[in-house]
Amino acid sequence: MFEELKQRVYEANMSLPEYGIAPFTWGNASEIDREAGVFAIKPSGVAYTALKPEDIVVLNMNGEVVDGTLNPSSDTPTHLELYKAFPSLGGVVHSHSEFAVAFAQAGRDIPAYGTTHADFAYGDIPCCRALTKEEIEGEYEKNTGLVIAEHFAKNNLDPKAIVAVNVKSHGPFAWGKNAKEAAKNAATLEIVARMALKTELLGGKERVDNNLLDKHYFRKHGENAYYGQKLN
Amino acid sequence: MFEELKQRVYEANMSLPEYGIAPFTWGNASEIDREAGVFAIKPSGVAYTALKPEDIVVLNMNGEVVDGTLNPSSDTPTHLELYKAFPSLGGVVHSHSEFAVAFAQAGRDIPAYGTTHADFAYGDIPCCRALTKEEIEGEYEKNTGLVIAEHFAKNNLDPKAIVAVNVKSHGPFAWGKNAKEAAKNAATLEIVARMALKTELLGGKERVDNNLLDKHYFRKHGENAYYGQKLN
Amino acid sequence: MFEELKQRVYEANMSLPEYGIAPFTWGNASEIDREAGVFAIKPSGVAYTALKPEDIVVLNMNGEVVDGTLNPSSDTPTHLELYKAFPSLGGVVHSHSEFAVAFAQAGRDIPAYGTTHADFAYGDIPCCRALTKEEIEGEYEKNTGLVIAEHFAKNNLDPKAIVAVNVKSHGPFAWGKNAKEAAKNAATLEIVARMALKTELLGGKERVDNNLLDKHYFRKHGENAYYGQKLN
Amino acid sequence: MFEELKQRVYEANMSLPEYGIAPFTWGNASEIDREAGVFAIKPSGVAYTALKPEDIVVLNMNGEVVDGTLNPSSDTPTHLELYKAFPSLGGVVHSHSEFAVAFAQAGRDIPAYGTTHADFAYGDIPCCRALTKEEIEGEYEKNTGLVIAEHFAKNNLDPKAIVAVNVKSHGPFAWGKNAKEAAKNAATLEIVARMALKTELLGGKERVDNNLLDKHYFRKHGENAYYGQKLN
Repeated sequence: MFEELKQRVYEANMSLPEYGIAPFTWGNASEIDREAGVFAIKPSGVAYTALKPEDIVVLNMNGEVVDGTLNPSSDTPTHLELYKAFPSLGGVVHSHSEFAVAFAQAGRDIPAYGTTHADFAYGDIPCCRALTKEEIEGEYEKNTGLVIAEHFAKNNLDPKAIVAVNVKSHGPFAWGKNAKEAAKNAATLEIVARMALKTELLGGKERVDNNLLDKHYFRKHGENAYYGQKLN
Repeated sequence: MFEELKQRVYEANMSLPEYGIAPFTWGNASEIDREAGVFAIKPSGVAYTALKPEDIVVLNMNGEVVDGTLNPSSDTPTHLELYKAFPSLGGVVHSHSEFAVAFAQAGRDIPAYGTTHADFAYGDIPCCRALTKEEIEGEYEKNTGLVIAEHFAKNNLDPKAIVAVNVKSHGPFAWGKNAKEAAKNAATLEIVARMALKTELLGGKERVDNNLLDKHYFRKHGENAYYGQKLN
Repeated sequence: MFEELKQRVYEANMSLPEYGIAPFTWGNASEIDREAGVFAIKPSGVAYTALKPEDIVVLNMNGEVVDGTLNPSSDTPTHLELYKAFPSLGGVVHSHSEFAVAFAQAGRDIPAYGTTHADFAYGDIPCCRALTKEEIEGEYEKNTGLVIAEHFAKNNLDPKAIVAVNVKSHGPFAWGKNAKEAAKNAATLEIVARMALKTELLGGKERVDNNLLDKHYFRKHGENAYYGQKLN
Repeated sequence: MFEELKQRVYEANMSLPEYGIAPFTWGNASEIDREAGVFAIKPSGVAYTALKPEDIVVLNMNGEVVDGTLNPSSDTPTHLELYKAFPSLGGVVHSHSEFAVAFAQAGRDIPAYGTTHADFAYGDIPCCRALTKEEIEGEYEKNTGLVIAEHFAKNNLDPKAIVAVNVKSHGPFAWGKNAKEAAKNAATLEIVARMALKTELLGGKERVDNNLLDKHYFRKHGENAYYGQKLN
């Protein structure tokens, strides 16, 4: 029934170890079918080498499993909250990639230091606050999603332009129009985090200027983009 | 006679170069069969590319070879002392992975900076003291195990929760319920050590707070764990 | 018609991911045929895994496509300006390799710290100025090429001896006698950038002395070179 | 005539890119047959992917080619001086591995920070002085060997115990009882250099103490070594 959705989610999950951003089972990709009112996600704790398309779990917007026999990822409620909060999202990826996690552990935004970053996101990748004791002891994974949504609302950030976030002391979530693009954004986040740390080790402190940020971001995104091939 | 044990120990040893934590012959995995009163370990100085299941050496709890024709790893007495001191251990791995060794060489604990660490161990990975001249010149490898046991006893650490240790100026030992899990913990140790160094380069100094440490550790470990699949 | 040129440019583009300097589609190689008055370049946004020799786009020196059905790389006008400004260039590569980009983002030249650098380029790899708002909002890619040419002219740099450059907040361009050599120089640039950062982390600040720079550079380049095999 | 020697030198050269210590053609391995009074070395500038056993060049102790049609490595006179100065050497490797070069470029010895280093060499890996203008402009490669020999003589270092060296602003030479062991030592040098830099980034400054240095070094080397398998 959800064969194509499950296949796409399977492929996006399999791209995470290929991108080198999900050691062991530490990563998960999901994709939503908003018309059908369901989203599909990796099962919890299953090794990528053992994962099969039919293992992918499909849930409705109440977080109830509607297809699949395995437990969904323990991070499923975070994905669900992100889909609810940000209607533009088609896919979500959580990973534990090394350099992005280092920024999360340092509690710092990933500064937009150059055009590689600007090609990907329209400004710094934020690090949102740690959860409170109550939020952690309550519905932790759901509250993680709510804290991300709160951060974007409070800071007036557009999830279409800022396509990833770090949760303090934890790690990144990235998203896109589908699971495949979310995975690519998660991989790109790791690359810009690697570049940002090295920039600082070299004494760099200056963000890309706004003109260059605009140029590179809008060269690849939005109506006036001219990067890539026109699709017919 | 010990075919299955030797096969498991062989596979765990072979996973060390796959994890990238044992250059050349610098690493060894063992597993204990407590009922039979024996443990099996890699032979000394044999390249992973040449290693075969039948090369694995089996010893009794006096450290005497009971099966196998090759010399056991020179670190065998350390493994033996760890099995004696910590009854919960089923497998032990020693490695010379780069970032964990760097913490050992700096004589520093690996701080629990985030949830990746908390998913793995319930607090900092300790660096225990250097051995004294007498301990080094005496039964060095045995004394290495005793110093680790001393550190855990003195600091009231639980080897089920703190699943690895560094020995000062030397490097890490990790363990688990069997050799396979010990190898996975040794690989995870290296990942959290990599993340910890980068966290510090970014100015991070704050450990994961206790609530989040508890949440992530107990999400994966113990009776109330809800990560992964229920085994039937 | 331009089969051989396109094949060479295809192969040079395919070497970029092999060298590990072009994640995703972020890199492009071109080569000029000065007699024919054309140059060939990668199409925009096409994944290396999907790229075929026939996809390579051929343009004349007015930047008009003369062969090929795909959009050329968005960086094409930069390549064109470099070919116009520096008559010695036969091939150009743009990449987003991590350490070279870090120097660009820090706005710093890559210092010639040792013989690995001297074997490759005769002095520091410069970082030229950021483009102005007007240059960015105008013909951005063309102006990028003009800013590079301006930097070489103002500082009296010889593009035959300084075979790469960084553009501030952006990243590197490298060149050579053909696309293949340009790709090799782009890969070497990344290696010397990696070494330079580590040199500084170790407290090194001193450039290779001029005698050693001369020795290594001229051992490999120019009339008196004696490295490698004499070609018949 | 020198088939076996050439085959061994070929294999040692091929191990350099496998160890990741010789990008492009930047590395060379040689081995000496002291009875025959010849040594064999990689030809200059030949890519490892193109190298064949029959390409290996054999020279006598005057540096004259006695077998082979290609130019020997431009570093051949350095190898020759090392063989002359240090009668214990059976093989020599020169490489441009990243972290060892960084120490050379910083003009610093690689400190023996731990047992990984002690397993390999009996103390710091020295960085010898830069060559003078006269030494560079004269027989540069030969003088490089003489400067290394001078450093060992002046500082009373034993090339059997200190199996590698860095030349300031340049990079490492390593050696061993044959070309294969020299290559392994060159690879190990890179690993300990990687560990040493990370140790310093973590605030480590203390060398492995002498007792532990002795223990680990003599556990693997010399008459009382007990690491590995006894050869019959």
